[in-house]
Amino acid sequence: MAGKKVLIVYAHQEPRSLNGSLKDVAVAELSQQGCSVIVSDLYAMNFEPRATGKDITGTLSNPGFFNYGVEAHKAYKKQSLSSDIIEEQKKLQEADLVIFQFPLYWFSVPAVLKGWMDRVLCQGFAFDFPGSYDDGFLKGKLAILSLTTGGTASMFSKTGVNGDFRYFLWPLQHGTLHFCGFKVLAPQISFGPEMASEEERKGMVASWAQRLKTLWEEEPIQCSPPWYFGQ
Amino acid sequence: MAGKKVLIVYAHQEPRSLNGSLKDVAVAELSQQGCSVIVSDLYAMNFEPRATGKDITGTLSNPGFFNYGVEAHKAYKKQSLSSDIIEEQKKLQEADLVIFQFPLYWFSVPAVLKGWMDRVLCQGFAFDFPGSYDDGFLKGKLAILSLTTGGTASMFSKTGVNGDFRYFLWPLQHGTLHFCGFKVLAPQISFGPEMASEEERKGMVASWAQRLKTLWEEEPIQCSPPWYFGQ
Repeated sequence: MAGKKVLIVYAHQEPRSLNGSLKDVAVAELSQQGCSVIVSDLYAMNFEPRATGKDITGTLSNPGFFNYGVEAHKAYKKQSLSSDIIEEQKKLQEADLVIFQFPLYWFSVPAVLKGWMDRVLCQGFAFDFPGSYDDGFLKGKLAILSLTTGGTASMFSKTGVNGDFRYFLWPLQHGTLHFCGFKVLAPQISFGPEMASEEERKGMVASWAQRLKTLWEEEPIQCSPPWYFGQ
Repeated sequence: MAGKKVLIVYAHQEPRSLNGSLKDVAVAELSQQGCSVIVSDLYAMNFEPRATGKDITGTLSNPGFFNYGVEAHKAYKKQSLSSDIIEEQKKLQEADLVIFQFPLYWFSVPAVLKGWMDRVLCQGFAFDFPGSYDDGFLKGKLAILSLTTGGTASMFSKTGVNGDFRYFLWPLQHGTLHFCGFKVLAPQISFGPEMASEEERKGMVASWAQRLKTLWEEEPIQCSPPWYFGQ
């Protein structure tokens, strides 16, 4: 798939972690395919997660009553969002595929990555009304969550204490990615690496590298309630 | 319920917003009941959402390989977490009831509040293994999510575009609050205030104030998959 553009949004503090290895192997494999790969290394960038008035560089539309969504929407149209947001939006606009690489924190993304979603995916850029879900502005792009968990696969099953892993994917895959128009590929979940052997962890990295070889041929999931909550 | 202690973890930038009014009315009503109420106003505090090595004030247990969860756990036991985390843990430890007041961002909490969860609810303080779910260390406490949405109630129904509102509550109520031992009260959801009239918004505040009068008599939800995904 030479020529394809890939953005990896990466949220781990330690380069030598399993998340770091999964990110590295994706860069290597996709580059070898001839893709151009960009990594947004959120902790290394000290990426700002808080959605505040600092995100708007120009005059606020209503300084007396701050509404973040409204102000960010207007600032996007006036090209007066802060430069870190504009930079990420440019990377995202160019990308054919976005990989989110992160450890699961509280059944969700770490706050630094949540902040990337809150701030970068603003109205006008990623969606509008109308312009959501299948008509979201990022349609035509693929997205995939590649994540590590603390718990094992059996803990994240329908009968496990944490419930099925698909339950926690709903806000991320449907409420965020699908909402913005992405086609979502099945998640890559590396379960419980801290409880695994070194050999098993190497297997997790190898299995991700192997999958990436044919990722472009995959069909997206049917991103609707039955995939998440059905039998 | 005189004497009860309440912590409100509040995440909105604008004091005059509906979220601000909902927070204010909770402070007023609960104070009138004789409760002592503390507010953690996360934006006003410029609360740090990123989980990094700065959260550990002493020597890292393994400086060559940073594992946030492991380091935070050890730092908690050695009382060497950063002061902002310790401060929040003290408030939480004292509280009988915690109210989370926030606008829904991407089917979840805003990043600043996600960061509060990521950093404050560390292993050793909020849970351990064993010591999760019904045995979580915050057992005996009540928690409630009070949130506002962009979409209407019908958009957040089983047949609506956003799916049932209970779907997005799973990671927050089960994966976070229940995991730490909280008993979870039914959420207070103010749907679509930006599409509502001024009178309707006043009704949302009044309805929250009314509910708070008898909140202490409420039974917690049965926090397990049927509540979220059942009929």
